[in-house]
Amino acid sequence: MTETQEFLCSAEELEDFTTSVLRAVGTNETDASYMAGQIVGSELAGHESHGMRRLPEYVGRVREGHADPAASASIELDNGSLVRLNGNCGFGHTVLRDATELAVDRAKTRGISAVAVHNSEYAGRLSYFCEAAADAGMATLIFINDSGSGRAVAPPGGLEGRMSTNPIAAGIPRAQAPHLVLDIATSTVALGTLSEWRDRGEALPEGWVTPGGFLQPFGGHKGFGLALIAEALAGALTTAGTVSNDPAQELQGALIIAINIEQLRPLGDFANEVESFVKYINDTPVAEGADVIRVPGERSAENTEQRKVDGIRIKPFTWNAMEQVAEECNVPMPGHSRSTPS
Amino acid sequence: MTETQEFLCSAEELEDFTTSVLRAVGTNETDASYMAGQIVGSELAGHESHGMRRLPEYVGRVREGHADPAASASIELDNGSLVRLNGNCGFGHTVLRDATELAVDRAKTRGISAVAVHNSEYAGRLSYFCEAAADAGMATLIFINDSGSGRAVAPPGGLEGRMSTNPIAAGIPRAQAPHLVLDIATSTVALGTLSEWRDRGEALPEGWVTPGGFLQPFGGHKGFGLALIAEALAGALTTAGTVSNDPAQELQGALIIAINIEQLRPLGDFANEVESFVKYINDTPVAEGADVIRVPGERSAENTEQRKVDGIRIKPFTWNAMEQVAEECNVPMPGHSRSTPS
Repeated sequence: MTETQEFLCSAEELEDFTTSVLRAVGTNETDASYMAGQIVGSELAGHESHGMRRLPEYVGRVREGHADPAASASIELDNGSLVRLNGNCGFGHTVLRDATELAVDRAKTRGISAVAVHNSEYAGRLSYFCEAAADAGMATLIFINDSGSGRAVAPPGGLEGRMSTNPIAAGIPRAQAPHLVLDIATSTVALGTLSEWRDRGEALPEGWVTPGGFLQPFGGHKGFGLALIAEALAGALTTAGTVSNDPAQELQGALIIAINIEQLRPLGDFANEVESFVKYINDTPVAEGADVIRVPGERSAENTEQRKVDGIRIKPFTWNAMEQVAEECNVPMPGHSRSTPS
Repeated sequence: MTETQEFLCSAEELEDFTTSVLRAVGTNETDASYMAGQIVGSELAGHESHGMRRLPEYVGRVREGHADPAASASIELDNGSLVRLNGNCGFGHTVLRDATELAVDRAKTRGISAVAVHNSEYAGRLSYFCEAAADAGMATLIFINDSGSGRAVAPPGGLEGRMSTNPIAAGIPRAQAPHLVLDIATSTVALGTLSEWRDRGEALPEGWVTPGGFLQPFGGHKGFGLALIAEALAGALTTAGTVSNDPAQELQGALIIAINIEQLRPLGDFANEVESFVKYINDTPVAEGADVIRVPGERSAENTEQRKVDGIRIKPFTWNAMEQVAEECNVPMPGHSRSTPS
């Protein structure tokens, strides 16, 4: 095997492996299986930055006593349309799954709701929560901060990292899958993408980091402004905490807003109109030979279809990390074949 | 007078003039005075693109039978937390003022609300509505489309304009004025800014428009995604209409979400924490001689303070447009002095 050889697995093999690892550190069957679906789903969607390479990190958080794999969120404050949840240091994947379900549930009767979350571990990709809510006929908006712990992003013109990557996500139901789902860091790239790129040993694209090595907001002062709004909503409104000179625990704050479309307009009419304007955007003429215009959610769906058939290629550095976790947890490595990178 | 000479007026002189013009085309005293405050407020804030230069356009919309200066919004659908308003082709400034007041009102008792607006004329800067809501202790999010009428923005890689500039705004109360208020087009620049720049006869900064002359989303695919979310929320959810091959009336759709902070956390605690993290961002070290880091809302507030003292400088092409309107409406021009540009 050369270092450039990759490991080809099926989604099922990776999901079984991931579930076993999460079970081994104390996660219950349902949550382990759900979380494995998300992690492997990131691989399928082409977002390796949020895929298998994160598993050692999640296991490490448990071993170091930060994450409680058996915890689930509890309601701290309940005003009907507005709820605050304590994540109790549970895995963010399951905490935000439950928070989203609660937001959807409250919006069903009340039309619109917001669930504020603090003390949650890292939640991975936010697309899943938006997709689940879109399946239930909801438009969603999600704002994230990291409780003031990560200061990887320098404000435009600033020489020092003082902001979080403050992701923002949104979901809109379309008549035909996939839903219109946006999931972006308000920094030029997500930290996971930056790590993934560095692990690959490739030079970073220009503009990703400042000369001092800090990420910066995407789109200059506009992305900067959006990041600050996310910090206020996900950090201050939720009591998760915000950036300051003080050290803070590596936890996430989240605000999830759900709107029950049906209470403003028949869901079918809405989803058809979205489908129609998206198609109009898809059909924009492009330069000869250029890629067709895709809207957010479409490429991930295409990748997923393809990789369900072709299998998932794991890079050597990720495979090595998986081997370490497998040994620690006494779980057999997933079945696989070897292949040269495509 | 040379063409480079500017006209120096006080805010009061310009407000009296603007109120008189709006009164002359059929706007009632209260609404005319409110709208004049917004238009002149844009001049004070340093956003000439949304200031006096727009007045001939508003008058023209009435004269051409598009805008109804006497109309106000009516409730079409009321689910308590979710309301749909018909703007009845009234001026957007007053329609969105009323829509925001309604959103605030509903959020006061229900915690969170959304007001969907269609059939509204152009609303000018969105900051005003966010500021008013922040004064009432609300966090706000506003999404705008133009009912499918303007297709000035090309998707990334697209050769044709197929999208609106889809502005997004957000407001967060701070303990000390000004509030944290974001008001951005999701295109590289707003159409008003583009027009203002062209009227000045200056070359456009690189990247504002595509080689084909279309605006593009700010920040590549991230701004593109945000624009599509705004189109769905402000166009499809409100029934205002979305972009397609069909012609559409030049009207705005808007979704305004208001969150009553007090129902999640004592407002004072929240506003203090926002104040504190904003100060931490403000204090980011910058290169020697570089401008201090400001957050959205701060520069407008500084400009406003300064221009209330120094007066407002009107450019010759705007002054000429005002003279035309003054003659049409039989309203005397505002008192002024002349000065060379600063």
